[in-house]
Amino acid sequence: MIIFGIDPGFAITGYGVIEKIGNKYKVLEYGAITTEAKLDFNTRLSIIYKEINEKFEEFKPDCVAMEELFFCKNITTGINVAQARGVMLLAITQLGKPFFEYTPLQVKQAITGFGKADKKQMQKMVQVLLNLDSIPKPDDAADALAIALCCGNTERNIGR
Amino acid sequence: MIIFGIDPGFAITGYGVIEKIGNKYKVLEYGAITTEAKLDFNTRLSIIYKEINEKFEEFKPDCVAMEELFFCKNITTGINVAQARGVMLLAITQLGKPFFEYTPLQVKQAITGFGKADKKQMQKMVQVLLNLDSIPKPDDAADALAIALCCGNTERNIGR
Repeated sequence: MIIFGIDPGFAITGYGVIEKIGNKYKVLEYGAITTEAKLDFNTRLSIIYKEINEKFEEFKPDCVAMEELFFCKNITTGINVAQARGVMLLAITQLGKPFFEYTPLQVKQAITGFGKADKKQMQKMVQVLLNLDSIPKPDDAADALAIALCCGNTERNIGR
Repeated sequence: MIIFGIDPGFAITGYGVIEKIGNKYKVLEYGAITTEAKLDFNTRLSIIYKEINEKFEEFKPDCVAMEELFFCKNITTGINVAQARGVMLLAITQLGKPFFEYTPLQVKQAITGFGKADKKQMQKMVQVLLNLDSIPKPDDAADALAIALCCGNTERNIGR
């Protein structure tokens, strides 16, 4: 079963694609969709939409997982992340596969067993669980892999 | 020149389509795209995207205007409105016509000449400026018409 994890943003959207085989995971790809700040916001949204669709086309995921959105420090950034996330939700709906959302706490608990892990510990756990030679970069891609792992560990009935 | 105004939401998205001929305006249509609360959020987004695209196809607007998003009372509602607005921005970008955004204050000033008009006064002004027999319903459609009028009054160079 192929799980596509997304850490949504509008400047950087991390993604991580993993395959779950039995109780093991294999990384298929991870990375980030980036849009340049000099582009107008609507153009950036359409780039994100196009590139997410291209990744779905390439990896044909069986399900998609994304973090729930919380507002945080900067409300303007938050609005723009939410608008970008809307475009991703549209692409996911058009894909027609199961979609799962998790809170940051759920992701941490699914990866580390307790909700107080710091960012570095989380990244290290992602590296270990996925047998990677180093911590995945950028941070957004590591977060997306964590979300995909959370999905794989939580939704035990999907893909059966 | 045909102006398509949008008051974005996820339960109710108001829209108003007006034609500017010289300094006069003619209403082509107004109304609301609604999605049922019982549907899952992603389905609601895809309905909004589909119906906005159908309206664009029907009216072939020369430009689109939408209110800027501000956060307000309820942050969860705000996030969902922003996600829905992202889907509308995608449809607008795919339409490929000029897009304009205004703050609520700019809309009020463009319609009533001063920024302190209340909702009822705004709606009455929309009715008068567009020669309508009554105040447009629902409120979201009246707001969308006000945004379209703001665009027509502000962007004097479009469509020339």
